[in-house]
Amino acid sequence: MPSDTPQPCFVLVRPQMGENIGAAARAMWNFGLDRMRVVAPRDGWPNEKAVAMASGAGRLLDEAQLYDSTRDAIEDCTFVLATTARSRDLTKPVYSPEEAMKVVRERVAKGEKVAVLFGPERAGLENEDIVQANGIITVPVNPEFPSLNLGQCVLLTGYEWRRQTTEIVGETTEMAGAVWANQQEVAALADHYEDRMDEAGFFFPEHKADSMKLNLRNLWSRMPLTRADVQTLHGVLRQIVRWKEKGGR
Amino acid sequence: MPSDTPQPCFVLVRPQMGENIGAAARAMWNFGLDRMRVVAPRDGWPNEKAVAMASGAGRLLDEAQLYDSTRDAIEDCTFVLATTARSRDLTKPVYSPEEAMKVVRERVAKGEKVAVLFGPERAGLENEDIVQANGIITVPVNPEFPSLNLGQCVLLTGYEWRRQTTEIVGETTEMAGAVWANQQEVAALADHYEDRMDEAGFFFPEHKADSMKLNLRNLWSRMPLTRADVQTLHGVLRQIVRWKEKGGR
Repeated sequence: MPSDTPQPCFVLVRPQMGENIGAAARAMWNFGLDRMRVVAPRDGWPNEKAVAMASGAGRLLDEAQLYDSTRDAIEDCTFVLATTARSRDLTKPVYSPEEAMKVVRERVAKGEKVAVLFGPERAGLENEDIVQANGIITVPVNPEFPSLNLGQCVLLTGYEWRRQTTEIVGETTEMAGAVWANQQEVAALADHYEDRMDEAGFFFPEHKADSMKLNLRNLWSRMPLTRADVQTLHGVLRQIVRWKEKGGR
Repeated sequence: MPSDTPQPCFVLVRPQMGENIGAAARAMWNFGLDRMRVVAPRDGWPNEKAVAMASGAGRLLDEAQLYDSTRDAIEDCTFVLATTARSRDLTKPVYSPEEAMKVVRERVAKGEKVAVLFGPERAGLENEDIVQANGIITVPVNPEFPSLNLGQCVLLTGYEWRRQTTEIVGETTEMAGAVWANQQEVAALADHYEDRMDEAGFFFPEHKADSMKLNLRNLWSRMPLTRADVQTLHGVLRQIVRWKEKGGR
């Protein structure tokens, strides 16, 4: 059963190699998309090579809907975008993947059925397919080397879908597993180092001692220290002192 | 020769299959990136299968720099990010690809050397690699199906690089090849239809005629009409009238 998440369907138009259909299924499911439609696949349906390649995302192929024409595949949709690298002679709004998935997100949220068309590997979508779409999605590739394949195009579009619809880790850079040291802990660490380094005769000559201490203290406060970091740095110092004391014995 | 564009280098750490190295080269060059470094590739260097797969981006392999260790590969870099799907026990800032490439763009613009690490296919980067990085990049994949391969990870990172560094078509949805009709042209079209439909007895009953005319006029103004669209719509009407007149003869 497809997931409950409202989402667009991805329509593979006249795909050729089974491997690429399988790769497209994997790319979709990587980003939580599981509505695939397939128009007139060259090698028939079901396709064994697609199934082999889709491992882990095979359900999308089992549940994929098969159509004879692009027109049939999108007849229940109110908004359709066509992915195409080339700017054709057709007058259509051109969206970046980001802008496209923003619009799709908004329309899907209102309950609209939305489809995204992907063309066959070699030649891409025909003008007859593109005229049926409300707009075009063009990936901003290097104009000297625009060589995205079907799976890559599905992957980038799916990525943008997920980026537009899920909260993204790191928009305000998170730290994995960080428990930050508080100011008291950092100050205690600074004290510990200052005391020991004082004993060790580090703050010399004396007229520079104050500014040297300030600099050392500032170094600790500049660091994004976790509680664990602080423990480690205490341990380092304690161990050096222990080692020194053994050597002195 | 690598391009002049300031950019990060992408470091493939202990890659296994030549095909994947070639796919990574293609994915990079798709987005204008051409600084590849390779650490201890499993099957030696150069790699024939990589070259075969890279067709069109083979230059990246010819120019790739080879290293024995991750440490050697990044020693000239001042900022290093590691791509890894799993959240490890290491305390590191975690960036989305978008956030990561924003930071990389800023640092590269200041003249810093920046590296992005990509792990071997099967197991990904080791903790020993990751501790050398300043932060982690995690692609927001479907937690039920996180199956990005090396080439896909390079592709998504490269895409975000390009998105952060080039003006993107469609941020304010552009129309490919549109010459918009001006208000005068739209009004003339509306007049043309109104006049002919009036002759044809379309505006009936008479007490509804005004609101019907208003609605028809409103329809034209709601459409995003190009000059060519307007010509087409004039032609349609003229032809219908011509056809009617022939029939009436």
